[in-house]
Amino acid sequence: MAGSNFVSEIFLFPLSGKIAPILAMATEIKAEPAMVLAGVLLSLVAIYIASKAGGEFFNWLGFPPVLGELVGGVVIGISALNLVIFPENGVDSSASIIVKMLELTAGLAPDAAEVTFQAQSEVLEVLAEIGVIILLFEIGLESNIKDLMQVGVQSLVVATVGVTLPFVAGTAGMMGIFHVSAVPAIFAGAALTATSIGITSRVLTEINRLNTKEGQIILGAAVIDDVMGIIILAVVASLAKTGEVDIINAVYLIVSASVFLVGAVLLGRFFNDTFIFFAEKFKTRGRAVIPALTIALFMSYVGAAIHLEAILGAFAAGLVLDNLHETEVGRELEKLILPISDVLVPIFFVTVGAKTNLGVLNPAVPANREGLVIAIFLIVVAIVGKVACGFSVFGLGNVNRLAIGVGMVPRGEVGLVFAAVGSASGALSPALDVAIILMVIITTFLAPPLLRVVFGEGEPEAEEVPETSG
Amino acid sequence: MAGSNFVSEIFLFPLSGKIAPILAMATEIKAEPAMVLAGVLLSLVAIYIASKAGGEFFNWLGFPPVLGELVGGVVIGISALNLVIFPENGVDSSASIIVKMLELTAGLAPDAAEVTFQAQSEVLEVLAEIGVIILLFEIGLESNIKDLMQVGVQSLVVATVGVTLPFVAGTAGMMGIFHVSAVPAIFAGAALTATSIGITSRVLTEINRLNTKEGQIILGAAVIDDVMGIIILAVVASLAKTGEVDIINAVYLIVSASVFLVGAVLLGRFFNDTFIFFAEKFKTRGRAVIPALTIALFMSYVGAAIHLEAILGAFAAGLVLDNLHETEVGRELEKLILPISDVLVPIFFVTVGAKTNLGVLNPAVPANREGLVIAIFLIVVAIVGKVACGFSVFGLGNVNRLAIGVGMVPRGEVGLVFAAVGSASGALSPALDVAIILMVIITTFLAPPLLRVVFGEGEPEAEEVPETSG
Repeated sequence: MAGSNFVSEIFLFPLSGKIAPILAMATEIKAEPAMVLAGVLLSLVAIYIASKAGGEFFNWLGFPPVLGELVGGVVIGISALNLVIFPENGVDSSASIIVKMLELTAGLAPDAAEVTFQAQSEVLEVLAEIGVIILLFEIGLESNIKDLMQVGVQSLVVATVGVTLPFVAGTAGMMGIFHVSAVPAIFAGAALTATSIGITSRVLTEINRLNTKEGQIILGAAVIDDVMGIIILAVVASLAKTGEVDIINAVYLIVSASVFLVGAVLLGRFFNDTFIFFAEKFKTRGRAVIPALTIALFMSYVGAAIHLEAILGAFAAGLVLDNLHETEVGRELEKLILPISDVLVPIFFVTVGAKTNLGVLNPAVPANREGLVIAIFLIVVAIVGKVACGFSVFGLGNVNRLAIGVGMVPRGEVGLVFAAVGSASGALSPALDVAIILMVIITTFLAPPLLRVVFGEGEPEAEEVPETSG
Repeated sequence: MAGSNFVSEIFLFPLSGKIAPILAMATEIKAEPAMVLAGVLLSLVAIYIASKAGGEFFNWLGFPPVLGELVGGVVIGISALNLVIFPENGVDSSASIIVKMLELTAGLAPDAAEVTFQAQSEVLEVLAEIGVIILLFEIGLESNIKDLMQVGVQSLVVATVGVTLPFVAGTAGMMGIFHVSAVPAIFAGAALTATSIGITSRVLTEINRLNTKEGQIILGAAVIDDVMGIIILAVVASLAKTGEVDIINAVYLIVSASVFLVGAVLLGRFFNDTFIFFAEKFKTRGRAVIPALTIALFMSYVGAAIHLEAILGAFAAGLVLDNLHETEVGRELEKLILPISDVLVPIFFVTVGAKTNLGVLNPAVPANREGLVIAIFLIVVAIVGKVACGFSVFGLGNVNRLAIGVGMVPRGEVGLVFAAVGSASGALSPALDVAIILMVIITTFLAPPLLRVVFGEGEPEAEEVPETSG
């Protein structure tokens, strides 16, 4: 159809879409906001279909729904349908089916395909991040700071053992058994230390075990593990890059993490009072969610700005809003955050699945065959090391130590980050890279069903839809 | 602090943040996802504070909250604090206070400031778009297709008269009184035709008048007006660009708009049945909102892909899910969509305010003084033309024709698009550009309080927080 490119340049986006492309005409090719929007919308449709199809199917099979969301993501991602893929997968726009659909249905110009793909991926990644921010905020709201503090020492021990054991065993094994040199061996060992708070906490919520003693120990240990993981990655990455350990960085991260977490707890009362003060005064729509979300986003920003993680800020924000049950707006908030979380959180899990490249299982590639052997070793260390850490819990009588260990197993998105940083730094051979990714996949996908088994059956609310959620 | 740049490059973003910058190191400067995320988070904090401060204050003054959100946006936007600003305002990263804060607090490298600003703006614009998509979906859900159809002819007449009167009077006046040549005069006339569905429908909801006969006529007319506006903008823009009217484009838009709207209504039953089928079968979280949102996002995509607007698709999707009250999941959905809307919609309104440049009021600039005179003329035509169209309603006895006319007055974001396209195409003189922007500002900010006045007092629910919303 004649003139269709002109129309697509000018008329698709009600706001800036009509402006930006014209302003940009004289300069280089920029992504048209209209096309970026269309690409994001289509990606979200694919993400939601994958999340519900996967989640419902796995729930019906008796597995945790989150596993289905991950698998749904794998199906629409880089491993299969190539609908939701990202530049970090090492692909460009020509691999993206969504971009192809935009070219076919919306008149996307071929020379704008790459910038559109880049911009659309950026937006989806921020949406996924906001998803996991909301998840951790919700988990924080559901947790009780006193319960967490009560098992704080146990959490610290579990995290420390769960980091040390796999790291030492992994590094030693790589050097001793596989004769890998020191830096890549340390990298592989470091990748074994991660624990995915997101996956662990979501499964705990789904099987209704978050507020048990075991759940609180796992949650606390996962948070500490996350901080340790950030520090380890900093140290290992600088080692891989310069051959030296950057002590100043490591100290800076340790100090800022401590100050942040202690500061968040100390500021808790202030945030709490601020929230209740405003939420009770407000009379217009969003009176409870907007103040709460503002606190959560601000804390996430601080977490990111001081070189920790946004999700740690979100969790801290949820945690400090802790006497919600005592106020009307507080109870309102706990109910209202659920649909927001239902809409945003799946974007995160599907995206994690979508980025997972099962291509490493292809035995036709030599590095994959070699990687498979190393992977078997890494997987054993990964599982045994974390399960063992559960048994380091002391001073508590009737506590399910096996469940605690299993709860620490999933590496999830954190493990993928280690693999990607290692691969990009050139420290890892292709085979070792494949092995780490396989270890991450297996631990991530194995943990949710295992957790359900070790916690035993008889969780009445596990498969029901909460009344307030939909 | 030593090594901070390295840390900020590698460790801020839990997922791709750690990967993408490393992958990009070898090539040109790319935006670090970690910094983009931090920028988006900080912008959202500013947006939510502005929306609540503005909304609550204006509600307390007796004005519609949405006006306060617009004003809050003006305060944090290009006119005042420069917190939330966009490249389309003609500024670069050096003007953005958020970018400055990232440099100060998060160690953003100065040479990455521009790409971060661009990427962050892209994300915020998509979030704002998703906000207005959710708003129109919610408005569609609250509307009844039968009620809309019943007043369909009246809506069509109101829209046609409301487009024709201001267009003819505006163009003639510009040529006759101000001796402007044909193309810019037609552009100014065209800018007078717009109506902002977003602002109008939000105010109607706030004063609890959406489901009155007047409300349905306004809503229907605003939708038709939006379609007409897209076609007019296409024609006028091609006229400004090539000096000729692109008939093929215009016909294509008319045909695709008609097919889309009729098709949406015809497919309504299918979408409705699909939604209820899946929502009732699903057992995991998000069982009602995810299927509904998937339909809404898909229809929005189609609206965008066929060169109409995403929001028209969202409205159609809400409209066709019409027998919700009869099912349990339907009633659930209507309750659950509220908090999602509460969180996303303010991003849109605050952004509209933030993009509005009150700098055009500065009398020190000669073009502004000249513009002010033209603006007075345009504002009179803008208000009189739309108010008059309300009186074209026929065949209905006791209906508030003045209210219908006033409901069509706000130009909002649609008017800003006309001004920006005109300005970018070079067809408009600076004075005429200023005049159009002033006209958009005045009609947008005047309409909400006027609407409340002409609908009369005594709306008991207007200032209360609905029980299900927070």
